[in-house]
Amino acid sequence: MSLDGRYDTDNIFAKIIRGEIPSVKVFEDERVLAFMDVFPQSRGHALVISKVSQARNLLEVEPEVLAELAAATQKLSKAVVSALKPDGVVVTQFNGAPAGQTIFHLHFHVIPRYEGEALGRHGEGGMANTDELKALAAKIAEAL
Amino acid sequence: MSLDGRYDTDNIFAKIIRGEIPSVKVFEDERVLAFMDVFPQSRGHALVISKVSQARNLLEVEPEVLAELAAATQKLSKAVVSALKPDGVVVTQFNGAPAGQTIFHLHFHVIPRYEGEALGRHGEGGMANTDELKALAAKIAEAL
Repeated sequence: MSLDGRYDTDNIFAKIIRGEIPSVKVFEDERVLAFMDVFPQSRGHALVISKVSQARNLLEVEPEVLAELAAATQKLSKAVVSALKPDGVVVTQFNGAPAGQTIFHLHFHVIPRYEGEALGRHGEGGMANTDELKALAAKIAEAL
Repeated sequence: MSLDGRYDTDNIFAKIIRGEIPSVKVFEDERVLAFMDVFPQSRGHALVISKVSQARNLLEVEPEVLAELAAATQKLSKAVVSALKPDGVVVTQFNGAPAGQTIFHLHFHVIPRYEGEALGRHGEGGMANTDELKALAAKIAEAL
């Protein structure tokens, strides 16, 4: 079962945390990081991850880390709503490849929904323009 | 925007909490309740709600209640994986009708995924058989 296995220290999010590859950050502290999804399913799609845990999924995460991630997901959702005025927000979290997980470092998706706009499939629209992501991140960060 | 508005004390989950309508429970304490979704999108689809908060969505919820819900969602996910051996688990949480929210009492979905089986649409398969839900709930509760 894909829920078994070991944390890969070279996964993309681990590299982002270590600063080895770039990301468009919304906010961070010593323990959590919120940043823009480069394959956004809608305008403003962002992610929350822990910088201190090697949990691959919800099943493995330490209780205190989970509480921090939940709080940061709420904080990000509020800022997204305030900044981008979507008609709704979906929070999703995938565990295991058959459930849609592609990067095996626990993460929460915050996905704004806009009336009359279907969600894109992850990756379908290709990689987002970095300048556009930076502008969105700045707008969301302003609303924090 | 559908994220605005007031908590309706007669929503279905409020009635379940007050015991005015039945539910198939997996576990509960004084503050949280986990129970089977009567319109399951897959075998073992269950929900987590707060019994003490009138938050309609993630934006409104009190930090301590959110932490309790996150912990209960993890507990339920672990038990579902242990009991039903799915290939993955999706956790989702909808905010606002355009995002797919139908009951305006904050809730987290725990949805097992099975390799090769697409998710049903909520309500598409009609209401689940209560005896089947009870058998699933008992199996999940055993794995707690």
